[in-house]
Amino acid sequence: MANPKLDFFRKQLTKQKLDGVLISSVANITYLTGFSNFTLEERGGFVLITKDKQFILTSALYAEAVKKQVPEFELVELHRGPIFKKTFKSLSQKHHLKNLGIEENNLTVAESKFFSQFSKLSGFNHHHLRSVKTDSEIAAIKKACQIGDLAFKHILTKIKLGVTEKQLAFELEKFIKSSGATFSFDPIVAFGPNSSVPHHQTGDAKLKNKSGQFVLMDFGVKFDNYCSDMTRTIFFGQPTLRQKRVYNAVFQAQQQSEKYITQCLELGRPIKTALIDQKARDYISSQGFPPFNHSSHGIGLEVHEHPSLSFRSKDILKPGMVFSIEPGIYFEEFGGIRIEDLYLLEQTKLTKLTQASNKLIQL
Amino acid sequence: MANPKLDFFRKQLTKQKLDGVLISSVANITYLTGFSNFTLEERGGFVLITKDKQFILTSALYAEAVKKQVPEFELVELHRGPIFKKTFKSLSQKHHLKNLGIEENNLTVAESKFFSQFSKLSGFNHHHLRSVKTDSEIAAIKKACQIGDLAFKHILTKIKLGVTEKQLAFELEKFIKSSGATFSFDPIVAFGPNSSVPHHQTGDAKLKNKSGQFVLMDFGVKFDNYCSDMTRTIFFGQPTLRQKRVYNAVFQAQQQSEKYITQCLELGRPIKTALIDQKARDYISSQGFPPFNHSSHGIGLEVHEHPSLSFRSKDILKPGMVFSIEPGIYFEEFGGIRIEDLYLLEQTKLTKLTQASNKLIQL
Repeated sequence: MANPKLDFFRKQLTKQKLDGVLISSVANITYLTGFSNFTLEERGGFVLITKDKQFILTSALYAEAVKKQVPEFELVELHRGPIFKKTFKSLSQKHHLKNLGIEENNLTVAESKFFSQFSKLSGFNHHHLRSVKTDSEIAAIKKACQIGDLAFKHILTKIKLGVTEKQLAFELEKFIKSSGATFSFDPIVAFGPNSSVPHHQTGDAKLKNKSGQFVLMDFGVKFDNYCSDMTRTIFFGQPTLRQKRVYNAVFQAQQQSEKYITQCLELGRPIKTALIDQKARDYISSQGFPPFNHSSHGIGLEVHEHPSLSFRSKDILKPGMVFSIEPGIYFEEFGGIRIEDLYLLEQTKLTKLTQASNKLIQL
Repeated sequence: MANPKLDFFRKQLTKQKLDGVLISSVANITYLTGFSNFTLEERGGFVLITKDKQFILTSALYAEAVKKQVPEFELVELHRGPIFKKTFKSLSQKHHLKNLGIEENNLTVAESKFFSQFSKLSGFNHHHLRSVKTDSEIAAIKKACQIGDLAFKHILTKIKLGVTEKQLAFELEKFIKSSGATFSFDPIVAFGPNSSVPHHQTGDAKLKNKSGQFVLMDFGVKFDNYCSDMTRTIFFGQPTLRQKRVYNAVFQAQQQSEKYITQCLELGRPIKTALIDQKARDYISSQGFPPFNHSSHGIGLEVHEHPSLSFRSKDILKPGMVFSIEPGIYFEEFGGIRIEDLYLLEQTKLTKLTQASNKLIQL
C-alpha cells in the first residue's frame, strides 16, 4: 500500500542520511496517521518512521483507539520511566537507529536528552511538508470557511446593546458546534478601544451605546482537523468620518495584496510571500496610517503554518497553498480595525475561501 | 514590594549558581505574572528573572496587554529574526547572564540552540513550585469544582434516548460557560463500549436503548485559570449484575485510597503519593478485576501537575496539595467505569472538593 506522505519522509531520510525520524508534533502526527487525539497539553505519543517500518508509540490510554484507527502503523505501547527506556532502547537497537531525525521545533530539551542516549539526533527538515494542500485538505478548509461565513451572518443578529464580548464569543461557539465543527482557536471579540490590541483577551466588556463602537471578531473554525481563520470589524452605531477612513484604508490595503498576487499570475512571475503584506503596509503608510505589526500566514492543520508571509520570508507561493491576508490599523485608546480572509492559490487564479462580506457594516 | 514567588525563584538561582532563569511554560508564566493570554499553540513570550530584575519578553501582539496587566515586570518587546537575537544578546550582556536556567521540560531543542548562543544553559529545578496551593488558589479550585458539580446535576437532565456523546459534551460546555468558566480540557463523553477507552474521543455515538448502557463523563472546569477534574459513570437503563459489581468495586477502590490517607493522618505517618492509587489497585485485584493503567494526579493551573501519584513517585503528600483519586476498571467491548474526585489535603483532614454524588446512578 503506497502512502505518498511516508514516501516523502523516507526520501528525506535518505537525503539527510538518517536511519529514522521521530515525529512528535501533534499536527504532523495527525497529518501522517489521521489520528488526532493527542493534545498540546501532554505528550500523547510519537511516530517513528524508519526506512522500512512505521510505528506509533503511545501509552495504554490511547492504545486501543490507535489500534482501531491506525492499522498501518505498528503500535508500540509506552510506559513511563524505566520501561519506556527499555522499550525505546530495544526499538533503537533492532532498527539500527544510529542517526535519528527529530523535530527541533517541537521536541523539548528534556526529551532530546532522553533520546540522545540511544541515537545521534539531528534536526529533520520537513517544514514544507504540509504547505501544498491536497484536494481533500482543501475541501476540509473550504467547509471550515463556509461554516465561518454562516457563523458571521448569525452573529450579526446577536450584536445588541448590553451584550458582552464573552457572550458574543459563546454565541459563535454554539453556532459552530451545532454545525459539527469547533473553534480552531480561542476567538477574539473586542469592543471599542479593546480592538486596538491585536490579541485582545475576550472579556466582560459590554456594548454600552450605539456610537460607532468597534466590534472586532477574529475567529476560526476547525472542521475535520482543518482550520479556517477570519476577522471582521463592524460598527455598532454610526461610525465617525475618521473610523470610515481607517476602515476604507484597511479594506483597500487587502485589495492591494490581492492585486499583487493576481498581477504576478498574469505576468507569470513568482509570487514572493514577503511582498503580500508589504503591499498592504505600503498602502496603509501612503494614507498616513501606522503599519500593522502582525503577519498574514499559511493555514491548515494548524492555524499558523508554512508558508510564512512575514516580511523576512523567502518563500514563493505555490498552487495548493492556503493562507490569510489580514491587514489592520490600530490606535491605542481609539481602537483597531482588521480584515482577514483566507485564500487558495490555484494554477491560474487566486480564490477567496471566506466569502462573508468585508464591506463596512453598521448595525 | 515583596513577591514570595519571585523570592523563591531568586533563592533557587543562588542555590543553582545561575545568573538568571528563563521561564517559557504558559502555566508558570501565568503563575508568576497573572498574565494568562499566552497559548500552547505558539510561543507568546518568556519571563526572565535575574538576581534583581524581572522581565516579560513578548511581541507587539501582547505588549499593550502586558503593560497594563503586569506592571511589576519590565516589558521587553521581541521581534522575530535578527532583532530578537540583538535584543536578547544585549539583555544577556547587560545582566551578565553567563549561566541561565531553562525549563527543560518546556523549551524546545531549537529554542535552546538559540539561547545557548548567549549563555550556558542548565535545567532549572522548580517542579514543586506550584504543588502547595495558597488560599486564593484553593478558593479558585473549589469554585471550579462547584461549577462542575452543578454541571453534572444539569447534565443528568439531558441524558436521553437519541442524544449523542458530542451533544452531551456541548450541553456541559454551555452550562459551564454560562457560569463564567470554561472547560479545563476537552471533555470525554463515552457511551457503552466506548467507555473502555480511558481517553475516548467524544464522538457521534448515540444513546440507542435503555439497557444499562454506560455513560462515562470525564470533564473539568477552569475558573480564574484554575482547573477542576471529575469523572462519573452512570447507567442509562437497568445495569446488569456484572455492571453493578464492577461499579461497586471502583467505588470501594476509591474509598480504600481515601482510607489510606486518613489513616496516615491519624497515625501521623507520611502519606506516600505512590501508595494512594496502589490501595485502589490492590482492592480491584482482590475482587478479581484487572488493574487500571492511568494515574491519579496533582492539579492546579494545569490539569496534571506536581505532585505525581504514579506508582513510581517518591512524593510525600503535604497540606495544601490538591489532587485527584480516580480508579477505574475497563474491559474491551464491555466498557469501563471510572470515578474521579478532587481532594485537598489540609493540616489534619482530607477534604473532598467535588461533591456530586458518586453512588451508582441509573437513569
